Amino acid sequence: MPRPALIIGSVAIDRVATPFAQSDRILGGAATYAAIAASYFAPTRLVGVVGGDFPPAFIARYRKHGIDLEGLRIEPAGKTFYWSGRYREHFAGRDTLEIQLNVFENFSPILPPSYRATPFVMLGNIQPALQNHVVDQLAGPRRPYILADTFDLWIHTTRPELERLLKRIDLFVINEEESLLLTGERNLVLAGRHLRRMGPRAVVIKKGGHGSLLFHPDGYFAISAYPVTKFVDPTGAGDSYAGAMIGYLASVNRTDFAALKRAVAYATAVSSLTVESFSVDRLSSAGRRTIDARYRELVKITRF
Amino acid sequence: MPRPALIIGSVAIDRVATPFAQSDRILGGAATYAAIAASYFAPTRLVGVVGGDFPPAFIARYRKHGIDLEGLRIEPAGKTFYWSGRYREHFAGRDTLEIQLNVFENFSPILPPSYRATPFVMLGNIQPALQNHVVDQLAGPRRPYILADTFDLWIHTTRPELERLLKRIDLFVINEEESLLLTGERNLVLAGRHLRRMGPRAVVIKKGGHGSLLFHPDGYFAISAYPVTKFVDPTGAGDSYAGAMIGYLASVNRTDFAALKRAVAYATAVSSLTVESFSVDRLSSAGRRTIDARYRELVKITRF
Repeated sequence: MPRPALIIGSVAIDRVATPFAQSDRILGGAATYAAIAASYFAPTRLVGVVGGDFPPAFIARYRKHGIDLEGLRIEPAGKTFYWSGRYREHFAGRDTLEIQLNVFENFSPILPPSYRATPFVMLGNIQPALQNHVVDQLAGPRRPYILADTFDLWIHTTRPELERLLKRIDLFVINEEESLLLTGERNLVLAGRHLRRMGPRAVVIKKGGHGSLLFHPDGYFAISAYPVTKFVDPTGAGDSYAGAMIGYLASVNRTDFAALKRAVAYATAVSSLTVESFSVDRLSSAGRRTIDARYRELVKITRF
Repeated sequence: MPRPALIIGSVAIDRVATPFAQSDRILGGAATYAAIAASYFAPTRLVGVVGGDFPPAFIARYRKHGIDLEGLRIEPAGKTFYWSGRYREHFAGRDTLEIQLNVFENFSPILPPSYRATPFVMLGNIQPALQNHVVDQLAGPRRPYILADTFDLWIHTTRPELERLLKRIDLFVINEEESLLLTGERNLVLAGRHLRRMGPRAVVIKKGGHGSLLFHPDGYFAISAYPVTKFVDPTGAGDSYAGAMIGYLASVNRTDFAALKRAVAYATAVSSLTVESFSVDRLSSAGRRTIDARYRELVKITRF
């Protein structure tokens, strides 16, 4: 029986420019991408904060996916976190053009009492102190399974707090560059092993268009990316990847190596949809059948 | 029954510096790496040229692998092609420090009559005009299966000749950057499809530590890299990859999609050995059992 998944992270209004197109005032934020991804697999709860300017259409988008919004705090007098960024030529990195933290500046995630026993939790990329603060609030009859994401800024600025977090989580999902930065390794296989020694039982290193790697006590797993040809905007790909993982694990209520491998494959399928449009448009409209078809396609294109 | 494989390309004496170590006067050249790789699977014939300075120990190395050297021309009065290169920090590209073409300058590959009916042929990275010249000499009762490699220099300088070659070969093996350069595409999936429209029935795009992609009329296949942790020198990885492919195909005497996928997996296993030492040291000493073990490991780490 599917268990619920809890997603904590940023909710934002974005402006994104790529070398080919741009968009403005679109729904964004790590928690948005992760929650919609997770919602395809399990009942999903969202903890975040928005301002009075948050469009009703964005709330409707969450509701369409059945996302529980009891944990979404609305501050009517404030404005929603705003981020504007531009991807460089060939998507070789991106530059932040403008950030208005607004209501996100003093965000301190408070779990509603009904969320505290959620058995599957994703700590999106927020300050490690806040991620630890969420862990402090978790209190159920069973030890929750916790996935955390991070960001290069926290590796540079609040490393001790991040190291403390790593000892408290089960699954760490990080991208290639950040895994090397955090460990000082020059090789992703060594970086993955190194990260496991820092605490989490399982580690996933995401390599964007080159797939991802899973490190687990029972073995190593490598998956290629889904062959996307309509690449529009990578924003949120990593967040929807992590959200799909926690959602899938909650849906099967398992966290063993075999389940984690399948979670990685579903995450690969889901994040391939995210990059095919701005915002969550493609992710949200795709439907579970498209995700399942991509999962089966991944099985097919990687077997020999 | 295994069929013979024919390898044409450069034989060199190399000097290689990496960010961590260096070596001098080591056995190199695309044909060297490819022939030793192919020799693990099929009887292998080598066409190349060396000078009077070519050390007997290097000849002995080929002989250890049972490589047929009738096509290896020795010019006693000349010197062997010499290449010196240095890899940049984090292996982000390499710079050629010195090239002495020597006997390679006027190399025009002539196939001994006994080689002309070889059913599996690899055209290593030499000028496309010379690759075409080899194709002209092939004359057997059966149409040979031809694999070709190339190099960014030929894309820039002799593109029409390269385009002519592409219409005459069966399998084109190219690296990521070169596939984008040659096609003008920005996406590897589109580049692979584009290359197939230029002639070859099958295309492999190599992504180094990120694995490789196979494009074939019967489908698409993606494989992750073998998880190498002792990375010493990438020189020859691509050549041994292509050599393993042609050797494996010759060994099973098949060129269908299923055989090509297995050839890609063997090539992945073999090239993972090449990068673990300078020159062909690790590749040559590993033995078929180590290659088979890595192949099985690749099956294991990619299944879900």
